Amino acid sequence: MSINIRQLDSSSAGFKTALRAVLAFEASEDAAIESSVAQILADVKSRGDEAVLEYTKRFDRLEAATLDALELPRARLEAALEGLAPKRRAALECAAMRVRAYHEKQKLECGTHSWQYTESDGTVLGQKVGPLDRVGIYVPGGKAAYPSSVLMNAIPATVAGVKEIIMVVPTPDGVQNELVLAAALIAGVDRVFTIGGAQAVGALAYGTATVPAVDKIVGPGNAYVAAAKRRVFGVVGIDMIAGPSEILVICDGTTNPEWVAMDLFSQAEHDELAQSILLCPDATFIARVQQAIEALLPEMPRRDVIKASLEGRGAFIKVRDMAEACAIANDIAPEHLEVSALDAQAWGQHIRHAGAIFLGRFSSESLGDYCAGPNHVLPTSRTARFSSPLGVYDFIKRSSVIEISQEGAQTLGEIAAELAYGEGLQAHARSAEMRIK
Amino acid sequence: MSINIRQLDSSSAGFKTALRAVLAFEASEDAAIESSVAQILADVKSRGDEAVLEYTKRFDRLEAATLDALELPRARLEAALEGLAPKRRAALECAAMRVRAYHEKQKLECGTHSWQYTESDGTVLGQKVGPLDRVGIYVPGGKAAYPSSVLMNAIPATVAGVKEIIMVVPTPDGVQNELVLAAALIAGVDRVFTIGGAQAVGALAYGTATVPAVDKIVGPGNAYVAAAKRRVFGVVGIDMIAGPSEILVICDGTTNPEWVAMDLFSQAEHDELAQSILLCPDATFIARVQQAIEALLPEMPRRDVIKASLEGRGAFIKVRDMAEACAIANDIAPEHLEVSALDAQAWGQHIRHAGAIFLGRFSSESLGDYCAGPNHVLPTSRTARFSSPLGVYDFIKRSSVIEISQEGAQTLGEIAAELAYGEGLQAHARSAEMRIK
Repeated sequence: MSINIRQLDSSSAGFKTALRAVLAFEASEDAAIESSVAQILADVKSRGDEAVLEYTKRFDRLEAATLDALELPRARLEAALEGLAPKRRAALECAAMRVRAYHEKQKLECGTHSWQYTESDGTVLGQKVGPLDRVGIYVPGGKAAYPSSVLMNAIPATVAGVKEIIMVVPTPDGVQNELVLAAALIAGVDRVFTIGGAQAVGALAYGTATVPAVDKIVGPGNAYVAAAKRRVFGVVGIDMIAGPSEILVICDGTTNPEWVAMDLFSQAEHDELAQSILLCPDATFIARVQQAIEALLPEMPRRDVIKASLEGRGAFIKVRDMAEACAIANDIAPEHLEVSALDAQAWGQHIRHAGAIFLGRFSSESLGDYCAGPNHVLPTSRTARFSSPLGVYDFIKRSSVIEISQEGAQTLGEIAAELAYGEGLQAHARSAEMRIK
Repeated sequence: MSINIRQLDSSSAGFKTALRAVLAFEASEDAAIESSVAQILADVKSRGDEAVLEYTKRFDRLEAATLDALELPRARLEAALEGLAPKRRAALECAAMRVRAYHEKQKLECGTHSWQYTESDGTVLGQKVGPLDRVGIYVPGGKAAYPSSVLMNAIPATVAGVKEIIMVVPTPDGVQNELVLAAALIAGVDRVFTIGGAQAVGALAYGTATVPAVDKIVGPGNAYVAAAKRRVFGVVGIDMIAGPSEILVICDGTTNPEWVAMDLFSQAEHDELAQSILLCPDATFIARVQQAIEALLPEMPRRDVIKASLEGRGAFIKVRDMAEACAIANDIAPEHLEVSALDAQAWGQHIRHAGAIFLGRFSSESLGDYCAGPNHVLPTSRTARFSSPLGVYDFIKRSSVIEISQEGAQTLGEIAAELAYGEGLQAHARSAEMRIK
């Protein structure tokens, strides 16, 4: 099966511009979606349950007399788990266990404890750290219903100590996904409503008579869900708005080219806009990966999506050496980065910007997607320059604690008043001065 | 000076609804601002320096031949610092020192170190943590030019280890604020451009020939700046979009009512939309605060703003007891919370949602605004339920590290393949299976 993947060379003149063109991706803003979402949110805000029921009937062809009837009882989740084939159930439970173990470790390391210190005059300063009260998890329905995403979104919240996790998942025509429901139970979700779209986001953000208002909404969704999350941001917290998924493989030419080809496929099969890029100093190896791609592609059930993705957004980049490959990787700041090389740990030291760094030829992205332990919700579209994988830290928040002693108020009051007068804020100054004896 | 402040009682029937009405605040979306900002950003993105120069000429009446000419040399910042009155300079330096000390402590406590662990089969999992490369700080010009904000935004970034900090500050008609420039030098800002508005946000987000592109933009601004920050979010990180400032004072009736009155003023003087609320179980004390307000108001240079703010958005809430006051405070989730009571530490334990918690009658908000040490950039409009003060953690980001051993790939490969087939992602499954011997 012939396939035409863009070839770049880092030593050619127009490389930098060509690379920018390969990476360029801008989510188009769709005015029709925006206005539709704005209207749905306003309607859910004012009419609550009733509006959610109407939109669920209209968009998911799912009717119910009350929103209560769209909440799944715990017994339904238990039945889903009991009904799984033993091997699949074991895989799901083992993945959950590993994801939980990693996030427990993260909780210890990422600073989720309160702290304070006392100054010599008795003034106490610190920070109070605690979990969010209630979190909503959006899980897409239909073909993009991924039980692994349920684990990856819910487990960090439970580890953080969030008191209540509300999951929403649309079930068009009433079709429920057993693996998703089982994952919800395993992950520790408290309540599940079979609602979706902007109406579910609105219900979680504003609360209705039946759906409790949450403090943060996480989880992937289609364009309507993304637009709704953007709009309710501020009323509630949201996670990142993800772009298409990306993999960047840096290979020194010592890995089996079929492994590299399949790793590129594993990203490309997600979606035609997904991006798979190979950086390699060895032109012969790049040719071998190309051959492996051509040989393996016909076997893949999702070959049409893979081909469209690789031809539309993929690239082979011939680099001068591994050091240059790392530098280019930092510029690309990919969601997933595989360093498939003999000296992977050493090269990994050069990587500063990537959502997840997979070191060594046995670390395929797919292991990270399901069960290595780290989160698979990662920053896309170069946002790894400034943002992080979803983690325990996304489900905690902090308050400053300031307890000024009488003695402290004397010295600090002078400073504060001086600066407040400098800014023309006299009440600030007087408020500080009043505490001075 | 008579003043009419809303009075609520927590034991009256409509209290919950009345409280919601007091708190309700929605930033209106202004279509004219949105379209103007969209156009400015697009123009800066495509024409760079030239566009920034044109908008600066148009909006700030400031002309320059090149954008280079709008960068302030370090000697200019040094001159500003040298020119300050000694007492003011000392106050600024002392404030900076205290803010730095607090954030150094925060850096130690908030999990800014990389970590990893090795499993029994040799698999290594962990997280690489590092500072952002380059950050932009927006500082408003004109009357809202606050040197304290320069310290509060820049210092956490320098403590986090950000390599380069670019500050932008509009100087309408070329008028520069000496205290702001001195603060930039003290805080460790690397470069300063006298540009502002949406054009400055665009220059920082996209980069121009002269202004380097940054990874994150923080700092307050007017409606144009806020709209521009929202629009470039994703290209760069942004801090929160702040609403009007708020103070909530819980008082048991043992504090000097003049102190409480002045603390309420110190919030109200910011802006007519600022919100000052007092919760107190003692109706007599509330009346004494009202008297103190009437007595003190005429002395305040900003009395018109204070009066408008207190009458428009302020409230006195009579509560049953201190425990109820704490519960209501958690529902309000204020930006600033003063617990002005005898047993402040004990009551403080009940507070879960607030940007900053000020304990005890000597802890006036104004000390925290300038020099106590904790950051004064705090979550507003109930967002303290899910977000945190600006901190060192806002200037770091994390990458997952996954190094699977050959042995680990055998067991994890089985699990990943099983789940990938369950999700219909065959390339993911094959990629895992290929690593199994």
